[in-house]
Amino acid sequence: MQKSWLNEVQWTAEGLIPVVTQEFSTGKVLMLAWMNREALALTAQGGYAVYWSRSRRRLWRKGEESGHRQKVREIRLDCDNDALLVLVEQEGGIACHTGRHHCFFRRLEGDAWHTVEPVLREPKEIYGGP
Amino acid sequence: MQKSWLNEVQWTAEGLIPVVTQEFSTGKVLMLAWMNREALALTAQGGYAVYWSRSRRRLWRKGEESGHRQKVREIRLDCDNDALLVLVEQEGGIACHTGRHHCFFRRLEGDAWHTVEPVLREPKEIYGGP
Repeated sequence: MQKSWLNEVQWTAEGLIPVVTQEFSTGKVLMLAWMNREALALTAQGGYAVYWSRSRRRLWRKGEESGHRQKVREIRLDCDNDALLVLVEQEGGIACHTGRHHCFFRRLEGDAWHTVEPVLREPKEIYGGP
Repeated sequence: MQKSWLNEVQWTAEGLIPVVTQEFSTGKVLMLAWMNREALALTAQGGYAVYWSRSRRRLWRKGEESGHRQKVREIRLDCDNDALLVLVEQEGGIACHTGRHHCFFRRLEGDAWHTVEPVLREPKEIYGGP
């Protein structure tokens, strides 16, 4: 991968960049995830979001288990070259592994985090149960 | 600061958390920045966004030089407790130090990043020139 546009990205010491994923049609911020160079190249090439899973230490083709893929509409880089914004269409309308539309479902109210978004589909239905 | 809601946040090894800042009225993603515990407490308490500047290694009261403060409407935490979404009203309509509405002003088109947002006010007008 000799692509010069990839060289403009300021990767962290671990070779990653934080990615804000926003739903194209609603403007909802779906999630914050991470990409490495390969994930970004694959995302640009394939048209579907591919992240780097820091917990599993491997490429994570979003939707590979859930079917909730993210079709990419735009990829944007910020002023410091150290953050990405990816605009997507969220297949199935569920971005979060908890079965919610998006991951930012807890809101600070007074001195506590309150869940303010419903579960649209139970995780065990999405991922299969034991 | 003994507040338990602050203890629910998964801080990085450096004591930070990435923060997506979104404009409340337009849904635009303005920037990605970082907070430490003190910045988050001050943001919640004071109602204006306070970040941790990694380059300057100090608290950064957004707008302290530019006047472009961010009035906070909502603070949200994600499913893994390791990312924040802050919904704000952007005073002056300019979030980016380049004088643009927001920081994600370059879009990937083919094999290159293209600037697709105008400068609304020259940085030297905002910050003062030499």
